[in-house]
Amino acid sequence: MERHFDEELQSLNEKLLRMARLVEESIALAVRSLKDRNELYAQEVFKREGPINLLDVDVDEECMRLLALRQPMASDLRFITSGMKIGSELERMGDLAVNIAEVSLDLLKVPPIKPLIDIPRMAALAQGMVKDSLNAFVSRDEKLAREVCLRDDEVDSLNNQVFRELLTYMMNDPASINRAVGFILVGRHLERIADHATNIGEDVIFMVAGKTIKHHIEEIRREAAAKAD
Amino acid sequence: MERHFDEELQSLNEKLLRMARLVEESIALAVRSLKDRNELYAQEVFKREGPINLLDVDVDEECMRLLALRQPMASDLRFITSGMKIGSELERMGDLAVNIAEVSLDLLKVPPIKPLIDIPRMAALAQGMVKDSLNAFVSRDEKLAREVCLRDDEVDSLNNQVFRELLTYMMNDPASINRAVGFILVGRHLERIADHATNIGEDVIFMVAGKTIKHHIEEIRREAAAKAD
Repeated sequence: MERHFDEELQSLNEKLLRMARLVEESIALAVRSLKDRNELYAQEVFKREGPINLLDVDVDEECMRLLALRQPMASDLRFITSGMKIGSELERMGDLAVNIAEVSLDLLKVPPIKPLIDIPRMAALAQGMVKDSLNAFVSRDEKLAREVCLRDDEVDSLNNQVFRELLTYMMNDPASINRAVGFILVGRHLERIADHATNIGEDVIFMVAGKTIKHHIEEIRREAAAKAD
Repeated sequence: MERHFDEELQSLNEKLLRMARLVEESIALAVRSLKDRNELYAQEVFKREGPINLLDVDVDEECMRLLALRQPMASDLRFITSGMKIGSELERMGDLAVNIAEVSLDLLKVPPIKPLIDIPRMAALAQGMVKDSLNAFVSRDEKLAREVCLRDDEVDSLNNQVFRELLTYMMNDPASINRAVGFILVGRHLERIADHATNIGEDVIFMVAGKTIKHHIEEIRREAAAKAD
């Protein structure tokens, strides 16, 4: 083996960051194409799909190779398995950005409806979560990772609000149904992007601290133990 | 170490199957609560969420432990990393079943709309994909796994059809908007369940054959190579 293990881990790190940058761009472009009603931004999202998918497979294969050849232990092992997971999360966010861009193209075919309501605010929140979850990964910052996970509730409640407002909107103006449903879907996609950022936050916490916080697992285990008593 | 590696792999296999069974039940119960307008079935879905999440964490930790202590190679390594991924896919399907059950409870508060249209057919297709993707995993059946992946298109096109029919429905009867949007969301959730089954199919193909088919990666690479020329 010509390369040092440290260099290989560094290269994996860089691939994930390159992927994250492409995904962040995709989300921003998708929301921009929706806001500005501009097809070109949507096309830019589609252009990023191939490279993101390629990086996902690349990260996966590299992680498998490192697991097989380097037989890593402890924190290196956690870094590599977290890397595999973070790659998958990023790839899914990329898909959701494509979904938003597709809705945006559909909405271009019909006249605009006035209120984009809280969609741009939701988008800004979700984008912030993506950025910070990756910052937490790079700087192994458990505190920031936890903070990202907490912000998920804000996005969820904003999405519920968007959903209710759009329902009322459709009822008052049935001619807007087609478009309002489009925005409802965009809201769901943004909510899911925030969910994936939360998953990355959880992966980072696990990587740094070796603790599994997903599903508030300790609570569940306590409950299960209490029941078994 | 008291246990043999083979036994440990077998135990991992069994945990994944137990998880799959709970997830299949959840999906079936969620759709049934929607069809029969029965709250009890939805409650049964919620009851399965905790155990599914617990198994997901369990599978994850077990895989990490095996990677660290057994330093597996080749097909064992692929089995373990595939197991980690399949666990995540199953957990996400479980969440989607919960989402469907939640919509079903919302819809109980309002009078029924006549056409459940193609939702039950979509559900049956998606459930079949979940079952077969796990069968393919258990019997390491690459052919069946490929077949599951192909069925995804059918679910997608059925969902598009459901979506369009429900739009028309809302336009003709604006009083049905609230409910029709519920069914649109159910359609999306079922579509995503089928996507996760497809992901499992891809994981199985990779596990058996060591090939990555996700993102039709070879095509993408050929394209990239052609561009670089």
